[in-house]
Amino acid sequence: MRDAHQVVVDYWDAAANRDWATFADLPSDQVVHQAPQTRERVCGRMDYVRFNAEGFPGDWHLKVERVGAETRRAASWVEISDGSTHYVGLCFFDFDEDGLIELITDFWPPSSELPSARIHLVERY
Amino acid sequence: MRDAHQVVVDYWDAAANRDWATFADLPSDQVVHQAPQTRERVCGRMDYVRFNAEGFPGDWHLKVERVGAETRRAASWVEISDGSTHYVGLCFFDFDEDGLIELITDFWPPSSELPSARIHLVERY
Repeated sequence: MRDAHQVVVDYWDAAANRDWATFADLPSDQVVHQAPQTRERVCGRMDYVRFNAEGFPGDWHLKVERVGAETRRAASWVEISDGSTHYVGLCFFDFDEDGLIELITDFWPPSSELPSARIHLVERY
Repeated sequence: MRDAHQVVVDYWDAAANRDWATFADLPSDQVVHQAPQTRERVCGRMDYVRFNAEGFPGDWHLKVERVGAETRRAASWVEISDGSTHYVGLCFFDFDEDGLIELITDFWPPSSELPSARIHLVERY
């Protein structure tokens, strides 16, 4: 069985290098990708590779901030920038019994205003 | 050293139960909480307990969707609802050498529109 932490490291290395052959080796045939914010979903390995290869054009770079992985679960926090815009990507991975990715749940939280209700409880940075 | 997965489980149990005495036992004295979306920060155990106890009033309930933990790193995905509004909370935890939480980075991604650039690559749910 593949090591979940290493699979997530390889996943982001492959994405960063647009190495879609390596990328395609990490999910299961029946992988599901879902993004709850937009309620979008992609099913199946080849459609998922195509979604990544074609859905995010541009000269972006990424930096992995954190990976936390157990045997069948992992999460990552990545920072992606195309020079003008900065994105934060938070991904939760579920693995099948062979260590292939079977579910990916992505979140992309934007900047937001601080609610006035807790302004007295925090500092800003 | 405390088990990081269990600390995260206990963290959310204590928050859900408003059990601030148990909650206060999990971070280090020098804990830092940061929320990159709003660029807000809270430093120190007692200020962090107060932030949680006072900053989020209301009759909310929470469900832990995922925890992924290694020795000094963990992440969780929780769903919080107060009956009318639903929130998704994504938290990354860093632990000190005793297994106390020393850094918490929170994200709260809202719903968003599907970009038209990838509408042909996904289905909706």
